[in-house]
Amino acid sequence: MSTATSHFTPPARYTVDPSLAHRRATAVVTVRGADGAPLADADVVVEQTNHEFLFGNIGFELVAHANRLAAGEPTDQYDETFAERWFDLFNQVTLPFYWGTFEPVEGAPRTQELLTAARWFAERDVVVKGHPLVWHTVQPRWLLGKPLEEVERLQRERIRRDTADFAGVVDLWDAINEVVIMPVFTAEENGITPLARAKGRVETIRMAFEEARAVNPGATLLLNDFDMSTAYECLIEAVLEAGITIDRLGLQSHQHQGYWGREKTLRILDRFSRYNIPIHMTETTLLSGEPMPKHIVDLNDWQVASWPSTPEGEQRQADEIEEWYRTLLSHPQVEAITYWGLGDRGMWLGAPGGLLREDATPKPSYDRLHALVKGEWWTPPTTLRTDAAGRVDVTGFRGEYRVSAAGSCAGFTLATDAGDAEVTLTTAR
Amino acid sequence: MSTATSHFTPPARYTVDPSLAHRRATAVVTVRGADGAPLADADVVVEQTNHEFLFGNIGFELVAHANRLAAGEPTDQYDETFAERWFDLFNQVTLPFYWGTFEPVEGAPRTQELLTAARWFAERDVVVKGHPLVWHTVQPRWLLGKPLEEVERLQRERIRRDTADFAGVVDLWDAINEVVIMPVFTAEENGITPLARAKGRVETIRMAFEEARAVNPGATLLLNDFDMSTAYECLIEAVLEAGITIDRLGLQSHQHQGYWGREKTLRILDRFSRYNIPIHMTETTLLSGEPMPKHIVDLNDWQVASWPSTPEGEQRQADEIEEWYRTLLSHPQVEAITYWGLGDRGMWLGAPGGLLREDATPKPSYDRLHALVKGEWWTPPTTLRTDAAGRVDVTGFRGEYRVSAAGSCAGFTLATDAGDAEVTLTTAR
Repeated sequence: MSTATSHFTPPARYTVDPSLAHRRATAVVTVRGADGAPLADADVVVEQTNHEFLFGNIGFELVAHANRLAAGEPTDQYDETFAERWFDLFNQVTLPFYWGTFEPVEGAPRTQELLTAARWFAERDVVVKGHPLVWHTVQPRWLLGKPLEEVERLQRERIRRDTADFAGVVDLWDAINEVVIMPVFTAEENGITPLARAKGRVETIRMAFEEARAVNPGATLLLNDFDMSTAYECLIEAVLEAGITIDRLGLQSHQHQGYWGREKTLRILDRFSRYNIPIHMTETTLLSGEPMPKHIVDLNDWQVASWPSTPEGEQRQADEIEEWYRTLLSHPQVEAITYWGLGDRGMWLGAPGGLLREDATPKPSYDRLHALVKGEWWTPPTTLRTDAAGRVDVTGFRGEYRVSAAGSCAGFTLATDAGDAEVTLTTAR
Repeated sequence: MSTATSHFTPPARYTVDPSLAHRRATAVVTVRGADGAPLADADVVVEQTNHEFLFGNIGFELVAHANRLAAGEPTDQYDETFAERWFDLFNQVTLPFYWGTFEPVEGAPRTQELLTAARWFAERDVVVKGHPLVWHTVQPRWLLGKPLEEVERLQRERIRRDTADFAGVVDLWDAINEVVIMPVFTAEENGITPLARAKGRVETIRMAFEEARAVNPGATLLLNDFDMSTAYECLIEAVLEAGITIDRLGLQSHQHQGYWGREKTLRILDRFSRYNIPIHMTETTLLSGEPMPKHIVDLNDWQVASWPSTPEGEQRQADEIEEWYRTLLSHPQVEAITYWGLGDRGMWLGAPGGLLREDATPKPSYDRLHALVKGEWWTPPTTLRTDAAGRVDVTGFRGEYRVSAAGSCAGFTLATDAGDAEVTLTTAR
């Protein structure tokens, strides 16, 4: 009856700050020329190149596109436009590792295809997340009917194989998804629910985390769930009590039944931030059409022939998107928001939740989010004058920056306040 | 990261048996006279005197009555009738140990009054349960504003004091109540919610169990909740994972918003029995009037001037009571059902959930339950003939029995099959 392994810590107080001061930093940057001498009293151009905050989206549709590009095959115009808009706004991608579609035939995983896509994103300074290593839906048919011990062995092997195969490219994983419902899930026969029921939720989570950690000790592993009730709190406390380290807490936030609003969102953040684990809002959907009726419990049960985006809906969605991002960034524990789909073509459930219309033109929500991420919260190329010691003060959103002068440039990171930087400009970039 | 302390065990399969065969036992009883010789070829009368199964009710109103009796003060006719009907049906009582009413003035607990009542029940072969040692409502005002460390110290002391003072009379406790909501409870300022938030649910539960266990190691301790969602499952798994032994799992079952029905009840039992911990249905209410609207979340929010029992409601309640008890007894993991109030006078929320009307006359539900507990499931005085070795076969519901012949008698327990008994009749009883 030891409490020695409990990772539960008394909740800290987090100050919600709509000014987002906690997202910004200031540094004194000393700029040196290629010769090492300070570039005194000179004009330099400082610009931001990336955000520390993860503005994410899924990249499911781009897997095939990236593979066509890699194979030198012709690409689709829609995909080209889609990809361009994708990279113009996002710096984190979630790629699909659903066991049932990743390895539809036992022993023949789509490793190469996903690796090609993952590398394509990573080369573009996008943080790649794999989703998910353990879940009870989108499961392989071939897992059904196997004894529990065999299911567990195969599940453990699959975690080790995929975290190993993708290490260095995918170092961020939803280790396990939707465990609250996992052992009592009844909508679909699958191999994982009986395993979770027999092992219990906590040991099922331990299995996911320990296997992924064993192969990729540097990976950032999430516990992810859609259940925002006290059930998820109890599950987190169970996991902490069991001495399992959750690197990040994943909160889904599909809002097909209506936008949560600022108050509810902050209430949820207050409850889940008390575990002192950084929060990723892993799956956000906000509609530009009619909401799904409230009486639907499992969102998958809402099957409609057509679910159109409407002009009023597009305006509302833009307002909600802006408030949603502002609200989440105002809470210091949130470090990532992954939107669940970019274009209405191919959205989950056929919902009009994209930021682009069916034809890839931007909805107001896309422009509104862009105006924040690459506008209000972004430092465009800005001319600054160095002092006699070659120094400039740079203040901006935390992230990656570039300073350039006379055809030479160098990068630096704006991370914490008073984090001064020394950069030496080089022509090679 | 040791799993050594986890008390999670793979779920067993429990067979639901409406014939209640698992509630019965058979024994060969050898009856001897006062001289020790077998009572051969003789008529003996066998009768049941108690059930092993706990058919419980609260005894809140009888606390004052028991104290008046003990003090030799005049009693009320209603209370006399109420008490008579109480003891004619129930063998387990839940007494109120709400901290706020038990110790309204710091240092002046109502120990003597409750002890008098508890003993009064215990002397009548009633198992006495204390409810609850830790909870966040009905809290003392004087606890407010104290620092967390002080609240914890006082809470620990109160558990030790009361479990010690009542040991031997009250050995069954709701150690802690409604922990799922405890740290996020907002309806009422109290001293316990902030403590639960800071310690976390699991360590709050550990506090309750370890203090009670330290003082009364033989006590049977329950974790009790009204939340039948996956949240309670997750909490139980957290507690098992933390190596805390839950002796019995308490499931409240206030059905003010409508009877659960057989199917839902069995589904709940299936989910909660998988922890291999015997289940007590600790707080049952079934109405003989209109149900509370479904949109009410906290039942305490439903405040009505009048909530009448109706003739149709009384018939429905009787049917529901019968099905409810039959269903629960059909599941082998259930070992207690505590109904939450006997008479409509003084029911929680003023609900018409009593088995007696305001004037203490029995509703059909009382008679229906009586016909089960003291009829169909009960062995009345029955004449049996011993064989040449003084033996009779006795089959019946598990519990306490008495055999008598020619003015002498002896008791025996019908507990497990093939549990034969030897009894020696004595005149003294």
